[in-house]
Amino acid sequence: MFPYPGEQQLRNLIEARLDQVLPASEEPPTRLHEAMRYSVLGGGKRFRALVCIASSVATGGSVDQALDPACAAELVHCFSLVHDDLPSMDDDALRRGKPTCHRVFGEGLALLAGDALFALAFEVLARMEAPPSVTTRCLQWLSEASGTKGMVGGQTMDIEAENSALDPSDLRGIHERKTGALVGASCAMGGACAGAAEEQQRALFEFGQLVGLAFQIWDDVLDEEGDASMMGKNAMSDRTKMKATYVSILGLEEARGEAERILDLAMKVAGPFGEKAEALRNFAKRAIRREC
Amino acid sequence: MFPYPGEQQLRNLIEARLDQVLPASEEPPTRLHEAMRYSVLGGGKRFRALVCIASSVATGGSVDQALDPACAAELVHCFSLVHDDLPSMDDDALRRGKPTCHRVFGEGLALLAGDALFALAFEVLARMEAPPSVTTRCLQWLSEASGTKGMVGGQTMDIEAENSALDPSDLRGIHERKTGALVGASCAMGGACAGAAEEQQRALFEFGQLVGLAFQIWDDVLDEEGDASMMGKNAMSDRTKMKATYVSILGLEEARGEAERILDLAMKVAGPFGEKAEALRNFAKRAIRREC
Repeated sequence: MFPYPGEQQLRNLIEARLDQVLPASEEPPTRLHEAMRYSVLGGGKRFRALVCIASSVATGGSVDQALDPACAAELVHCFSLVHDDLPSMDDDALRRGKPTCHRVFGEGLALLAGDALFALAFEVLARMEAPPSVTTRCLQWLSEASGTKGMVGGQTMDIEAENSALDPSDLRGIHERKTGALVGASCAMGGACAGAAEEQQRALFEFGQLVGLAFQIWDDVLDEEGDASMMGKNAMSDRTKMKATYVSILGLEEARGEAERILDLAMKVAGPFGEKAEALRNFAKRAIRREC
Repeated sequence: MFPYPGEQQLRNLIEARLDQVLPASEEPPTRLHEAMRYSVLGGGKRFRALVCIASSVATGGSVDQALDPACAAELVHCFSLVHDDLPSMDDDALRRGKPTCHRVFGEGLALLAGDALFALAFEVLARMEAPPSVTTRCLQWLSEASGTKGMVGGQTMDIEAENSALDPSDLRGIHERKTGALVGASCAMGGACAGAAEEQQRALFEFGQLVGLAFQIWDDVLDEEGDASMMGKNAMSDRTKMKATYVSILGLEEARGEAERILDLAMKVAGPFGEKAEALRNFAKRAIRREC
């Protein structure tokens, strides 16, 4: 659906750049570097990277300009998966169809690999070829989306909400932070790289946040439907943990409808970007429905 | 020994700024914010923050210019302490004379609080009032010093070296990363804030790295001497874990001598900065010997 390189080619570009920025397994500390590479490479839809690049193009920028922030967003995402899977968190055995990082490398090393991936995300931003004002704006988007106002805050709220009654707006608040913020920041960074105005970057953030939310609701729908092969993780895992999900609160059909409504809203937000944002909009729609 | 505000006043300034940048306990997620504040405030010598500020002054800058990077360095340090203390790492019960974060808030929340402190460090850099070129340079120093080439890499090597025979140069390599890199980056960021030339920033990094190393050797000496009240953590904890230390490899007297030699070398590196760096040099000397 991308008119430029093509979706698979873009994924290859992202994969190659991730491979470049990750430290080599041969360099010490080798086990740490192996754990980092294991947790990032050879899996993952690269959703955040793709919307980052598509947002750059949507605002007149290029693929190359957004490649490093796209990789930084993926690294933050991978760091969060490694830590979320740890025994003291979700204690998951399977991720992207492979044993989780701590199952392969041990708990201590998985903790450190997550930390190192998080540091690497910022190192990639630090070294990107861009005017310092663009780097600084990307740093603002990414750091804010990662911390207590974003991903880590959302993850905490998600855990605290276990075994408690939530209404849809509580759940939305959690997932706007846990998933929405980083997808939003990915889009906004794409805009920043393209030199988009502040107002445009904010619109891209809002678009991405909505898309992330719709993605998460769809995740709950798929989790309920229990297709482990499609999810690459243990299906039903959220339900057995008594986590409130959109499906448990709204029911399957209504959850699907909510995902579509939020997606429609995202499309409206991205409307003013016109034709250049066509690929961004189409990609988001298809990614949410897992059509790509 | 600082000619400007005075050491205790500087510590108060740093404490007040940390209090400002940390999210309020009343804001949700409240437990996460409490855990972050618990792990940062009301303890700690602020060694990294003080050398950062002193480095700014040593290169013609002000205290204020370096206050935010100084806090960012402290936040990275605090994040590393929270994660190092976790059961899957050192499993420590006591830190700065208080129960460790996970003993108070639980393991999952301590993990997330560490992650959030790391994110906050970069958010503080992102929002500092400085030309974007200075922010970007600080980001480079801090991210590189935190990751696999720095703190996290050193921590990994330290764990991997448990129960194995090390020579002094192995141990030096570990602590240059684990402790030296962040102290070095703190000094270099101070220089960056003051607009110091690249060469000066590199000299400040080298100075800080040596000072961090001497600090670590002195730590081993104090750990051996077993004065828990001075250390604020369980004395002898490294020995019972069969970790190689400077003392176990070199003996107590030789370790003390090595600390002094490295400190002398650091003083030589800082020599060319002249009189303006007097406070920086004096503070480093006294801090290493725990005289302040």
